[in-house]
Amino acid sequence: MIGAGISGLAVAGTLRSRGIPTTVLERSDEVGGLWRHRGPGDRGPSYGSLHLNTSKGLTGYSDFPVPDAYPRYPSHQQMASYLRSYAEHKGVTEHVEFGSDVLGVTRSPDGTWAVATCNSTGGSEVRHFRHVVVASGHHWSPRVPDIPGMATFTGRAIHSADYSTPDGHAGKRVAVIGFGNTAADLAVELSRVCEKTFVVQRRGVHVVPKTMFGTAIDEIASSPWWARMSFEEQRRLIELSLRVIRGDLTDYGLLEPDHRVFGGPLTISDELLSRINHGAVIPKRAVERIEGPVLHFADGSAEEVDEIVHCTGFHIEFPFLPDGLGFEPGGQLALYQRVVPPRETGLYFAGLIRPFGAITRLVEEQGRWIADLVQGRAALPPVGEMEAEVQAHLEAARARYGRTAGDSVQVDFARYLAALRERRGAPAAQPA
Amino acid sequence: MIGAGISGLAVAGTLRSRGIPTTVLERSDEVGGLWRHRGPGDRGPSYGSLHLNTSKGLTGYSDFPVPDAYPRYPSHQQMASYLRSYAEHKGVTEHVEFGSDVLGVTRSPDGTWAVATCNSTGGSEVRHFRHVVVASGHHWSPRVPDIPGMATFTGRAIHSADYSTPDGHAGKRVAVIGFGNTAADLAVELSRVCEKTFVVQRRGVHVVPKTMFGTAIDEIASSPWWARMSFEEQRRLIELSLRVIRGDLTDYGLLEPDHRVFGGPLTISDELLSRINHGAVIPKRAVERIEGPVLHFADGSAEEVDEIVHCTGFHIEFPFLPDGLGFEPGGQLALYQRVVPPRETGLYFAGLIRPFGAITRLVEEQGRWIADLVQGRAALPPVGEMEAEVQAHLEAARARYGRTAGDSVQVDFARYLAALRERRGAPAAQPA
Repeated sequence: MIGAGISGLAVAGTLRSRGIPTTVLERSDEVGGLWRHRGPGDRGPSYGSLHLNTSKGLTGYSDFPVPDAYPRYPSHQQMASYLRSYAEHKGVTEHVEFGSDVLGVTRSPDGTWAVATCNSTGGSEVRHFRHVVVASGHHWSPRVPDIPGMATFTGRAIHSADYSTPDGHAGKRVAVIGFGNTAADLAVELSRVCEKTFVVQRRGVHVVPKTMFGTAIDEIASSPWWARMSFEEQRRLIELSLRVIRGDLTDYGLLEPDHRVFGGPLTISDELLSRINHGAVIPKRAVERIEGPVLHFADGSAEEVDEIVHCTGFHIEFPFLPDGLGFEPGGQLALYQRVVPPRETGLYFAGLIRPFGAITRLVEEQGRWIADLVQGRAALPPVGEMEAEVQAHLEAARARYGRTAGDSVQVDFARYLAALRERRGAPAAQPA
Repeated sequence: MIGAGISGLAVAGTLRSRGIPTTVLERSDEVGGLWRHRGPGDRGPSYGSLHLNTSKGLTGYSDFPVPDAYPRYPSHQQMASYLRSYAEHKGVTEHVEFGSDVLGVTRSPDGTWAVATCNSTGGSEVRHFRHVVVASGHHWSPRVPDIPGMATFTGRAIHSADYSTPDGHAGKRVAVIGFGNTAADLAVELSRVCEKTFVVQRRGVHVVPKTMFGTAIDEIASSPWWARMSFEEQRRLIELSLRVIRGDLTDYGLLEPDHRVFGGPLTISDELLSRINHGAVIPKRAVERIEGPVLHFADGSAEEVDEIVHCTGFHIEFPFLPDGLGFEPGGQLALYQRVVPPRETGLYFAGLIRPFGAITRLVEEQGRWIADLVQGRAALPPVGEMEAEVQAHLEAARARYGRTAGDSVQVDFARYLAALRERRGAPAAQPA
């Protein structure tokens, strides 16, 4: 098991409870993955003010509830603490090798996987495992856009991975590049201290609040009444509700998306639109070029800024794996049921999914299936069948979302859960 | 004219444009009223982060638009600057006596009003005016609730009137007492720096965002389609929309109001419910008693706090007027059309109204009516008729809102505007 974040722990917990000997290799000195953030200098996708965007009920594990005292949307500190308790509770902690950085995972002649690691004291080691689960996440390799004139920028440019708190940004003019959840969070909090805060949008994205009807949106997406609706009905309900909640995005000076709701990733923010209404965050179009301190935007306007914060996401990368393993030539992930590379045996990927909602229930189910496969309770279909499923998934993702590698991790919650369950072993083997 | 805030300036602007000689007595050294706030130490209803809760279009004067460059909800600095420009534009500024504190307004034997003032150098003066317009506002005399054990409180207690910024509150445990707009704003901003922030609710109040359907709620309340709906239809539309936008208030641990929407004041906040969902603001019931640092709440819980911020509003008071003038014995305002005390002549009150939405259009109309009365273009009905109107208004207010003196200033936007227009002089005298 590589990684002790929310996905790695879910799978390790299941493997342990099935009595499967498991070693968890974790680069840092703590469990918790992206929910760990220790403050300035701690590089990663997390930041000081990060809270769950999905509700605690569905983001917590099904057999270990998030504490009652936690709010509906816990902070990253609370989540990290919860994940530590879970790892203890499941007896996983004692099987985690902290400070263990995976350098390479390669196939040995005997069919096992040779896993090379180095530890925090510089020692290195190669061990052989019959099965390897990759749960190293997909928020570690910052993606920075190539903007003409970037080299001439006279201000300070950072990626959100290096952002911790608004301290040190007070009074600055800052451009937040990107329009995902992190861009929204950072623009909102920088706007409280900065002289001017721009949010730079390349493409229209639907902005949704964390709750609708008083219910967390992930709870909506996993409720029985939701599952009974057709996709078109779901879409219409949300589109109509968003008209009540926020009207058109052009009312806020934002780009209207070129796709309908669920036709692309959503940006979740309770505060961004309000901050725009108050003049605290100023929407801008894509940066076309940079000249010294000046950003020239696609709408023809230009602004002098002191700082750029790239909230442009992360590359999905597994530097320890053989080149291209798990990917299509075009860069999209090519995994049977988002878990198994069709032409490899004993290799699994956990948590490489992005549903509308929390991933936890889905990763738990991935863990059960992986355990079934490891124990021989379930079997994989022939390679051709697996490859056909991969192509069908990618075809559907392209049709629905288009463009990027990230889109290949998008899954439909209910449909994906059902598909995994079908792949599982005998129903008797399922936990209650 | 007493007061150079948004109401005083509206009336003074109309009086000036009618050629009526006008002196504006303003206690401070600037126009702008509650929108002026200079930072810590500047006592008043404003605070550092204050923005309009109503849209700039309807809050600005109809004949002098708020600058295009301002956001939909300008800051208090922007509003103060706009009001200064308006006063200049209307030629009012040169007729304002700054630093002029009104000590007394009494009836002289000759029927004029004797207005005693003192100025900033300590000099005092008595002048006589045929007409006096009171536009001194109703946000100057802080109301502090009488909580058992308050004298034993070992922390620091302030009223919102003495609050400026969250500086100095960092890391504290603070209880915000009250649940109006100011309580919501202060709880939200304190929650970003305080260790714990409680918001203490005595009574359920409907919480609404500043915009619905992408439209400012005051724009909704003054649109033609809204006016065409019956009160019951308006109420149902908003109640249904609030179910979509936020669900039940009990979902957030708040009290559900004991009245329907428009059956009492609304609390306007874009952020409060989200902050509760994130555990940053913790709702509590009324404080039943205080023991040293501990607040005991009506729900049986108790919390130790370092600070209390009373956001419990202001008394409506006119200390310079003869005792009881303008009020019912029970403390409710008793003004014909919310402007004229029935048994006095030449005395008018401007801006003592609270519609659902901005007061500006209504105060402008009050100004035109006052000008008509001053110029003899319109006449007041007999005292008995005026007193009957007052009683009918108070009766309706009691039936709809009940309880407090503040409820007597609540008016229905469209109905009140129509009533004022009926009172006005010949239609030919109306501006286009």
